Amino acid sequence: MHIGLHSTWDVYDCDRDKLSYVPYISEVLHAIVDDLGLGKVKDAFKQFEPVGVTGFILLEESHISIHTWPEHGYAAVDVFSCKPFDVVAVENKLKQLLGAENVVTRNLERGEVPNPISS
Amino acid sequence: MHIGLHSTWDVYDCDRDKLSYVPYISEVLHAIVDDLGLGKVKDAFKQFEPVGVTGFILLEESHISIHTWPEHGYAAVDVFSCKPFDVVAVENKLKQLLGAENVVTRNLERGEVPNPISS
Repeated sequence: MHIGLHSTWDVYDCDRDKLSYVPYISEVLHAIVDDLGLGKVKDAFKQFEPVGVTGFILLEESHISIHTWPEHGYAAVDVFSCKPFDVVAVENKLKQLLGAENVVTRNLERGEVPNPISS
Repeated sequence: MHIGLHSTWDVYDCDRDKLSYVPYISEVLHAIVDDLGLGKVKDAFKQFEPVGVTGFILLEESHISIHTWPEHGYAAVDVFSCKPFDVVAVENKLKQLLGAENVVTRNLERGEVPNPISS
């Protein structure tokens, strides 16, 4: 048994404007967490100059993060949760909200323990 | 070329007391970031009851997170950075600071782009 799933999405060929500024990227991250029904503890975002965003929401179930490179049309997203979640739904949401054409998804099972109890 | 490296450490057989409370886990996370010479933007931690911690530090170069399950002697750690960092040094530091005997390290190259520019 595993403690949780840690998924990463490499999101390519995004609409560069959508990757550029904190308010929209914050909306994207919060929308994903709302869709997944996970619990928010605290968030933090940073605006890079002239463009680019890094952000994080600490979750009751672990975390979600996003880091964007508008100059490459690229965003890196991950979710780690001890509660099961819909990996494909996140991929589709990222495509829709970032205008992305190409997403590479990877799934890591984390924490092999005899009898996991969600915290 | 890749935008950055995303490494995960599954840390087993830890000293359970060390995993239990925010102050020590915060020290551990800050010590790793200091050792790696990465830039801190903001941190956040949450204490679970009776024990267990979840936390992250948003970095100039991306992020570091930790989630602990003292009941399993287990901690999940990850670092994503667009600046190269010493993966083995983090593994050794985690063993030392968490009294861990067994660490499984995985490395994901993130963001395949033609000509990465660090943000």
